[in-house]
Amino acid sequence: MLAQLYFKRLPGWWKMLVVAMCMALLACLQAQELQGHVSIILLGATGDLAKKYLWQGLFQLYLDEVGKGYSFSFHGAALTSTKQGQEFIAKVLESLSCPEDMAPGRCAELRGQFQQLSQYRHLRTSEDYMALSKDIEAQLQHKGLQEAGRIFYFSVPPFAYADIARNINSSCRPGPGAWLRVVLEKPFGHDRLSAQQLATELGSFFQEKEMYRVDHYLGKQAVAQILPFRDQNRKALDGLWNRHHVERVEIIMKETVDAEGRTSFYEEYGVIRDVLQNHLTEVLTLVAMELPHNISSSEAVLRHKLQAFRALRGLQKGSAVLGQYQAYSEQVRREQRKPDSFRSLTPTFAGILVHMDNLRWEGVPFLLMSGKALDERVGYVRILFRNQAYCAQNEKRWVADQSQCLPRQIVFYIGHGELGSPAVLVSRNLFRPSLPSKSWKEVEGRPRLHLFGRPLSDYYAYSPVREQDAYSVLISHIFHGRKDSFITTENLLASWVFWTPLLDSLAHEVPRLYPGGAENGHLLDFEFSGTQLRFSQQQLEQLVPGPGSAPKPSDFQVLQAKYRESPLISAWPEELIAKLAEDIEATAVRAVQRFGEFHLALSGGSSPVPLFEQLATRHYGFPWAHTHLWLVDERCVPLRDPESNFQGLQAHLLQHVRVPHYNVHPMPVHLHQRLCAEEDRGAQMYASEISALVTNSSFDLVLLGMGMDGHTASLFPQSPAGLEGTQLVVLTRSPSKPHERMSLSLPLINRAHKVAVLVMGRMKREITMLVSRVGHEPKKWPISGVLPSSGQLV
Amino acid sequence: MLAQLYFKRLPGWWKMLVVAMCMALLACLQAQELQGHVSIILLGATGDLAKKYLWQGLFQLYLDEVGKGYSFSFHGAALTSTKQGQEFIAKVLESLSCPEDMAPGRCAELRGQFQQLSQYRHLRTSEDYMALSKDIEAQLQHKGLQEAGRIFYFSVPPFAYADIARNINSSCRPGPGAWLRVVLEKPFGHDRLSAQQLATELGSFFQEKEMYRVDHYLGKQAVAQILPFRDQNRKALDGLWNRHHVERVEIIMKETVDAEGRTSFYEEYGVIRDVLQNHLTEVLTLVAMELPHNISSSEAVLRHKLQAFRALRGLQKGSAVLGQYQAYSEQVRREQRKPDSFRSLTPTFAGILVHMDNLRWEGVPFLLMSGKALDERVGYVRILFRNQAYCAQNEKRWVADQSQCLPRQIVFYIGHGELGSPAVLVSRNLFRPSLPSKSWKEVEGRPRLHLFGRPLSDYYAYSPVREQDAYSVLISHIFHGRKDSFITTENLLASWVFWTPLLDSLAHEVPRLYPGGAENGHLLDFEFSGTQLRFSQQQLEQLVPGPGSAPKPSDFQVLQAKYRESPLISAWPEELIAKLAEDIEATAVRAVQRFGEFHLALSGGSSPVPLFEQLATRHYGFPWAHTHLWLVDERCVPLRDPESNFQGLQAHLLQHVRVPHYNVHPMPVHLHQRLCAEEDRGAQMYASEISALVTNSSFDLVLLGMGMDGHTASLFPQSPAGLEGTQLVVLTRSPSKPHERMSLSLPLINRAHKVAVLVMGRMKREITMLVSRVGHEPKKWPISGVLPSSGQLV
Repeated sequence: MLAQLYFKRLPGWWKMLVVAMCMALLACLQAQELQGHVSIILLGATGDLAKKYLWQGLFQLYLDEVGKGYSFSFHGAALTSTKQGQEFIAKVLESLSCPEDMAPGRCAELRGQFQQLSQYRHLRTSEDYMALSKDIEAQLQHKGLQEAGRIFYFSVPPFAYADIARNINSSCRPGPGAWLRVVLEKPFGHDRLSAQQLATELGSFFQEKEMYRVDHYLGKQAVAQILPFRDQNRKALDGLWNRHHVERVEIIMKETVDAEGRTSFYEEYGVIRDVLQNHLTEVLTLVAMELPHNISSSEAVLRHKLQAFRALRGLQKGSAVLGQYQAYSEQVRREQRKPDSFRSLTPTFAGILVHMDNLRWEGVPFLLMSGKALDERVGYVRILFRNQAYCAQNEKRWVADQSQCLPRQIVFYIGHGELGSPAVLVSRNLFRPSLPSKSWKEVEGRPRLHLFGRPLSDYYAYSPVREQDAYSVLISHIFHGRKDSFITTENLLASWVFWTPLLDSLAHEVPRLYPGGAENGHLLDFEFSGTQLRFSQQQLEQLVPGPGSAPKPSDFQVLQAKYRESPLISAWPEELIAKLAEDIEATAVRAVQRFGEFHLALSGGSSPVPLFEQLATRHYGFPWAHTHLWLVDERCVPLRDPESNFQGLQAHLLQHVRVPHYNVHPMPVHLHQRLCAEEDRGAQMYASEISALVTNSSFDLVLLGMGMDGHTASLFPQSPAGLEGTQLVVLTRSPSKPHERMSLSLPLINRAHKVAVLVMGRMKREITMLVSRVGHEPKKWPISGVLPSSGQLV
Repeated sequence: MLAQLYFKRLPGWWKMLVVAMCMALLACLQAQELQGHVSIILLGATGDLAKKYLWQGLFQLYLDEVGKGYSFSFHGAALTSTKQGQEFIAKVLESLSCPEDMAPGRCAELRGQFQQLSQYRHLRTSEDYMALSKDIEAQLQHKGLQEAGRIFYFSVPPFAYADIARNINSSCRPGPGAWLRVVLEKPFGHDRLSAQQLATELGSFFQEKEMYRVDHYLGKQAVAQILPFRDQNRKALDGLWNRHHVERVEIIMKETVDAEGRTSFYEEYGVIRDVLQNHLTEVLTLVAMELPHNISSSEAVLRHKLQAFRALRGLQKGSAVLGQYQAYSEQVRREQRKPDSFRSLTPTFAGILVHMDNLRWEGVPFLLMSGKALDERVGYVRILFRNQAYCAQNEKRWVADQSQCLPRQIVFYIGHGELGSPAVLVSRNLFRPSLPSKSWKEVEGRPRLHLFGRPLSDYYAYSPVREQDAYSVLISHIFHGRKDSFITTENLLASWVFWTPLLDSLAHEVPRLYPGGAENGHLLDFEFSGTQLRFSQQQLEQLVPGPGSAPKPSDFQVLQAKYRESPLISAWPEELIAKLAEDIEATAVRAVQRFGEFHLALSGGSSPVPLFEQLATRHYGFPWAHTHLWLVDERCVPLRDPESNFQGLQAHLLQHVRVPHYNVHPMPVHLHQRLCAEEDRGAQMYASEISALVTNSSFDLVLLGMGMDGHTASLFPQSPAGLEGTQLVVLTRSPSKPHERMSLSLPLINRAHKVAVLVMGRMKREITMLVSRVGHEPKKWPISGVLPSSGQLV
């Protein structure tokens, strides 16, 4: 009434203004209602993570979003009793902090509001979840609010996931039109299989778009800056970001702490699962992926990330070095009450060499390293560019921002270390980078600070205007639905597909022990050569021999014998391969010297793979340009089929050496769109190709393998084809799939100048001994028919 | 008589001793006579080189060999009058010095002997030579000496060579059973042709084994140590001396002096002919060649050297950067009385990027650099190894001889520079080298000396026990017939074959001007990218535009036109290639996205070569693994023939990208050992391969060229085959050799989704304009028949 009175007394234009203001206010209130209400349920609200980061992150979200059209309620949930939980939360909420630049009064006011909106509840049974949902609905109805969505943040151990997920799905989904987001914390499984199971289980409760798997590294400011940096400096980086210019990429997370107090978790996971499979791999993909045209498209970013995963070359045992700090086993014994004899094999340090199989990164080493009990705490991604300059002046005259001979690097400094804050560093002799000036500022000079071999003043160095905790960043992204900061199921599985074979192959590896801290000296330095990684220093003594350590030489018996009158060379696989490769090279060189060409027939299967690799990377004098490659046998599948012997040859040998196209002779198993049809006369075609090109149809060298059943080439005990007669090339049948094969015949093989039989693996020892003794019984043991008429058998 | 008396009085055992001593003395004298007499004739004995180095070298030879069974006479010859010559020589001989460790009395004695054996003679006409020969013979007869051989040392300008050689050959050869050695000093020609002519001319007078071409760099102690070092450290170097471990090789000769006083020579030669073609190239071969099993076999060393030459990748204009110190042109004007307007284009500085096309060195940059008026005088070969280590500790804790993260290098320090003497340096974190301890000793510590980025104490550093001048070393090698320290004709021509095309292409290049000395700053720094070299700094102003400088944009007219209704894109070659490559990549990516594969048909010839290179080195996103490559046309030659289009594709594209073997489709021009025989039905085979693999026989992209006669693919105006009809692939006849061709037909080409015609070069401008205007007249201009029915023409 009073208002009405006043209103009447106002001058005309004032009336207009007041009406306009009221309308604006109304619109604003309506807008707020339109955006709706968001309920955030923090599961595990009394846990460590929640206490340290998540409540603060939720408060930060509230600070950022308050007054922008949403209303909120925050539910801290746990298994703790209601009273204890309430007390815990009250304490946490008291300690929440505001940004430095906020006035204390304002801070207190907002914290008060946040406390009002936050409550604890005990959440265990499905009834509890139903009750929660009802309470939310009642609240909405009571306040006349529209529901926008619900966020469930799983800050609980993985074994609790399934129950909670089932309860949410069945009893606690938001009403129609509102979204559901569930936030999951690692570990997301232990290997490919368990991750797949977990994903399948969660997938039965939630849609992919509803799940937000957190890798908190993606919320680190320097990590989050990688793609924007690449995008904003596209022009400068365009010609640089590739194998022609990048010498190496280092992705590093060093810790000084050890695993004490956490060994029950750590013993099950180890450093690769704890840090590399997730944090460092995510960073790797951000550096390596092809940059989408629009980096704000989550979909495009995720697609390119998956492409990067597909380009990763598979890891082998030799791609890793492992360490364990000396006190670890003792800590495990103490914390887990293990016997004195217990020695853990869990690595607390790992260095991994990763290669990408694409044209951008081929040959560039990506070094991933993480460890506990190291000499410093620091995380960084360092892209070191190749020095492609020659500086005509004496080095004393080089000027830091002009000389292209000084190191050129870009570093995303994730945090800690000597710099003490996140940063982006770009060598001044590279280019002046562009960074968003609102959020990144130039670092002030620190004259004595040297980083990565150069004084800080040699870099353009930027740090965030306001340092933000990773969880605050990610909670904001969850709220805004920015899925590219999270790990999709596809992404997760791709990562496990990449890591699981390595983890399996390392399961019984004994890690190198290190004392910890600065005392490690150069003990953990490692180096690579080709695809192999090894510690730089020989280890003089292995203090603790592990229980499941690698087989020792004495575990094997050396076969000292003759193989059917010819020398039977047995040795460690590496030596055997090295010897054979040398022998093949010498034979090739002689053949080329005498005849101008070398005809080599190769078998398929896995045994020759290390031989191919040896030849490709170690034998510079090999006359590839004059070598003809033939196949000993082939499976009747298209040449591009992964089962094709030719495909193996292509992947392990042809890709790496320069054999002219026309010197490569795949078997014509695929003609007229059919496989090994008699009437296509593929065997005859191959035979006449051999006759035309190979003098006297006598190969310079035939490399054979041998199967457990004594088969060789694709000549099988059960099938008489090719064991005798005049046919040079035959179609045969294998007892195992794919059944149909094409093979050189025994008579043709025996015309070779030299035949080498490569047998690898303990499994084949028995059969080798047996065949060494039997006579010429090719129908029973085809391998026994290998008897070069004028050549040499090795 | 007295002696006889004494002898008789001696006791018996004394008699025995004296007899034995006399017999030994006799044997010794006989041996000396058996080795015979050597006459050394120094031609140009009064010249600078003779004065500075050669007389001293001859004296050193005498010191080394005296008493070892040879007798000597030294003839200093020149055109100078006898009196003047004698005076000159007397003066030079007075100043000869002995090694430091020789007693002064002994030195004076030997110098006296040497003076006695040396004489001057005027040598001009053939009579003079005959007289010389007669004198030698008379002397031999007089003293009862056997002739061992004669050495003629040509220290004269090259124009005098032929006359002298003729005179020696006709009048001054030694008697039967004695050898002749002629020693030649550079320059050995000015380019391939002149070197060949000179070699042919000399070859008509001397046998190859008689000629010793001096490159005095091969006598430098550090250079001469390269092969022995590689040999003695084979084990350590075996795994390191290759592209997997070597980051780069620098071969450097820097001078502080300029060309003042020598411009008449320099103006004709320039730095590449003066230093790089000979000295630095020789060093390059010593570093790069495959190491012979026995490095003391001259024959093996020379053979391996030639192999190294064959592996050199051809240089292009872009492989070089050139400079000229600012005062040079003025010096030339002054010394050669040129007009004020004269500007020289002769480079006084050059940086060259060399690559080797073999498996050991592929991709490793060899940087050759030399220049006058630089900031320091120094020569070295530096092999820098790749850093393949990651050091787990903070860099502050790295220890020089343990950390594999500090630079690892081997340096053959040829001389001068901060070290001031020849040396071999090996980083301590590499290995402890083995050097012959008699001739090389460890360098004493010099705490403040930094070399190549590290303190001297970071190296194992060795220098010669006794420093020797290169000419002394070489004269000794000549005397001992060690031909591997000299340049054989084959070697010389191989070097000119390598350098001449570059010299030709640089003939009109304007060198960058530099002030000289330390003032050069970073002006002459250069860097490489792929096979291209360029100065690191943009040049802000070109002070002196050269007379024959590169054509300017205004020299060309841009074709702004339409080509037969389709856009005619004309541009600078680089832009055109870059655009086309981008377009092809985009087309390929689209095709693979839609159909899973991309079918590309390519033409032969030289026009597409830069396109191939662009695609191979710039387009990382190109889906090569899903691309099929077809040939547009082929010459009826074996695929491995250099004339084959496929061979070009192999060399410029296939070698560099990863197209699976089975996606490459060469035309079957060579079947049953015949070329393009109708009855082999090669064209039909190719057609059915196309029909089988390419949907609707419609290529995604066909790249055509165009000939001056309007031909395209191998469809010629004179031959109707393939211009119409149903045949997809045809045999045709070209007016130029090789006449027989196989080609896609016009109807097939026109079925493509896209056809691009790439025309390069000014020569083809007229025809392009003409063809742009003519109608559809494929019989006159086959190119005018290119009209994709549903596709796009670019």
